[in-house]
Amino acid sequence: MFKEETAPHRLTVLGSTGSIGVNTLDVIRHLGGRDRFEIMALTGNGNITLLAEQARATGARMAVTADESQYVALKDALDGTGTVVAAGRSGLIEAATMNAEWVMAAIVGTAGLAPTLAAAARGATIALANKECLVSAGELFVQAVQKGGGRLIPVDSEHSAIFQCLEKDQRPSLERIILTASGGPFRTHSREQMAEVTVQAARTHPNWSMGLKISVGSASMFNKALEMIEAKHLFDVGPEQIEVIVHPQSIIHSMVGYSDGSVIAQLGVPDMRTAIGYALTFPARPQLPVDRLDFARIARLDFEAPDETRFPALRLARTALQRGGVQGAAMNAAEETAFDAFVDERIGFLDMADIAETVMEEMIAFGGATSINDVFEADAEARRRAVDAIARKEKAA
Amino acid sequence: MFKEETAPHRLTVLGSTGSIGVNTLDVIRHLGGRDRFEIMALTGNGNITLLAEQARATGARMAVTADESQYVALKDALDGTGTVVAAGRSGLIEAATMNAEWVMAAIVGTAGLAPTLAAAARGATIALANKECLVSAGELFVQAVQKGGGRLIPVDSEHSAIFQCLEKDQRPSLERIILTASGGPFRTHSREQMAEVTVQAARTHPNWSMGLKISVGSASMFNKALEMIEAKHLFDVGPEQIEVIVHPQSIIHSMVGYSDGSVIAQLGVPDMRTAIGYALTFPARPQLPVDRLDFARIARLDFEAPDETRFPALRLARTALQRGGVQGAAMNAAEETAFDAFVDERIGFLDMADIAETVMEEMIAFGGATSINDVFEADAEARRRAVDAIARKEKAA
Repeated sequence: MFKEETAPHRLTVLGSTGSIGVNTLDVIRHLGGRDRFEIMALTGNGNITLLAEQARATGARMAVTADESQYVALKDALDGTGTVVAAGRSGLIEAATMNAEWVMAAIVGTAGLAPTLAAAARGATIALANKECLVSAGELFVQAVQKGGGRLIPVDSEHSAIFQCLEKDQRPSLERIILTASGGPFRTHSREQMAEVTVQAARTHPNWSMGLKISVGSASMFNKALEMIEAKHLFDVGPEQIEVIVHPQSIIHSMVGYSDGSVIAQLGVPDMRTAIGYALTFPARPQLPVDRLDFARIARLDFEAPDETRFPALRLARTALQRGGVQGAAMNAAEETAFDAFVDERIGFLDMADIAETVMEEMIAFGGATSINDVFEADAEARRRAVDAIARKEKAA
Repeated sequence: MFKEETAPHRLTVLGSTGSIGVNTLDVIRHLGGRDRFEIMALTGNGNITLLAEQARATGARMAVTADESQYVALKDALDGTGTVVAAGRSGLIEAATMNAEWVMAAIVGTAGLAPTLAAAARGATIALANKECLVSAGELFVQAVQKGGGRLIPVDSEHSAIFQCLEKDQRPSLERIILTASGGPFRTHSREQMAEVTVQAARTHPNWSMGLKISVGSASMFNKALEMIEAKHLFDVGPEQIEVIVHPQSIIHSMVGYSDGSVIAQLGVPDMRTAIGYALTFPARPQLPVDRLDFARIARLDFEAPDETRFPALRLARTALQRGGVQGAAMNAAEETAFDAFVDERIGFLDMADIAETVMEEMIAFGGATSINDVFEADAEARRRAVDAIARKEKAA
């Protein structure tokens, strides 16, 4: 049941034209749309047509394209609507700063850092779908949320699951977080087979329909590695409290284990709207037209231990967590650079983790980030070093 | 983490010599025993040796045997300890009335009704392990708890699971309760095979080590039928909101489904101490030496729809819930009588449900219970009618 009195009224969606953004607007529409909510700002990148359409449909007060070259086109598209139009990084900050009580932070990549931090700093409830805020800038970001006095609710299906399972009274009894991983398309491949896989093979995720970056990250379990780092910051747990279990059906989205032996799990169909709706109406739950689980049809759930020889990303995440500092940022940036090289067929599938590991080793002496600029610098440094490591690998091959 | 400040201090265990009672005293010992708790009363039946030993070990203020003929033996066994000794029904009521803040209600059968109601009436937190309070006297009992101003926490593993999954903020969004059932030893039997099974075969439960009554009730899913009725009263849901799914491994103890498509499940090893500890320290969780789940070792969880042709008890429970009145009491009493006849090899395994159905039909016109005596009368009436139905079946055979 949706409690009007406790739910936020003024909403902003940073990254409204991506998959999470589109689902967010769908949830908002299901929960009453313009009759119930006021959309303060929507932001997108190059897809001006969709952004303008969303702004018209929701009556958004502001629409921002991150791509400054699209400013005029967006302005034209929203002519006469009363929606304020802005562009570029300053436009994103402006959008994040509008007084929405609830902000969906779904801008992809480091571009999402500054606007999400701005929203956190003014105390908004942050529905977090951007990974970099926690992976690259975890301490900074969590501090900003705490200082701003707002609340952080994860939207990623695994972290939403954990958030849903974790009652606040029971935080002191939390023993472990169990992230489930589908195992991706190469779950049963040998390491030799994995060394040879193509981009096309890596993009096919068994359970979720996703973009190329996320699909490849799922195939290498690099996404799971990032989620381990996110979990550390979201739930304030140590590396030894974070487990990963391969669960090919992806029905159990994640679990928590308590000091009394009890394990609480959240299950659902692969539909992001459940997590988005939960983030919007927490601590209540919305009514949503999401498919319900039918256990007799599901028939079976499987589990197996992840193989860190074939999926070294999991080992790297643990290393990053143990080392601290900017190792998360280094791991993420190096892997993104290596991902591009893999997509260009310059390096093999397993080389991505090698590159990330090399860069992390090289940056071991870097201290922690004390400002967002430190994060950007660590990110850029890791990308430069990854480019070099990729070049060395190509030369050696 | 066990929060001393919010946990109850004075405890009573009604039915301390049974399996739940013994586990309860074990949990109490693990959480600090006499240093942390004061045991107000312990009650048992014929096992005077164990009861006296428990009273000595815990320093219980009062020890009660339900069996009046054992009064002197118990008195002798506790001579010089300072423990007050009582016996019989009045003794049980006296034990329940002592000012313990927390009462484990683990007396088996209708004998548990009066003492548990007495504890509820004075506002104690009731950790409920007695089925009859809800199956036979649901409305009355829930009213007594509400009127007393206390709290009701289920201890049965399925209902504890649901209680653990159900956040109070989210009660309005509760869509369904999904009780898991192991399916028992006859899960894959044909109806023809089930008609011929022996008492010995029926007593072998695949996952839990239990007494004969509970094992046979598990084999016929009659226990699950009782749990459906308990769930209705505990969680205030309609019959259409209660589902049963067969889950042979019994790792998922039960689940709840919400209006956003999310399902929350509680999982654990078969160890009653988790549910008992939760009932004792709620809303916190205790630290307990219960085995932890290892999902890689579990490897697989299965589910299948229950077959109501082979397990008619599930259908009877739904009928009882729809009809209301004393149908729950009738179903339970008739089945207990039929169980005795099955154990005596006077009727077959499938006849038990037939008897219960017949008695429920015969008692359809009976109104609801407005006092505990109404419950006792309905119970006695159902037993008389079951005896007749069993005799008719024997004659026909």
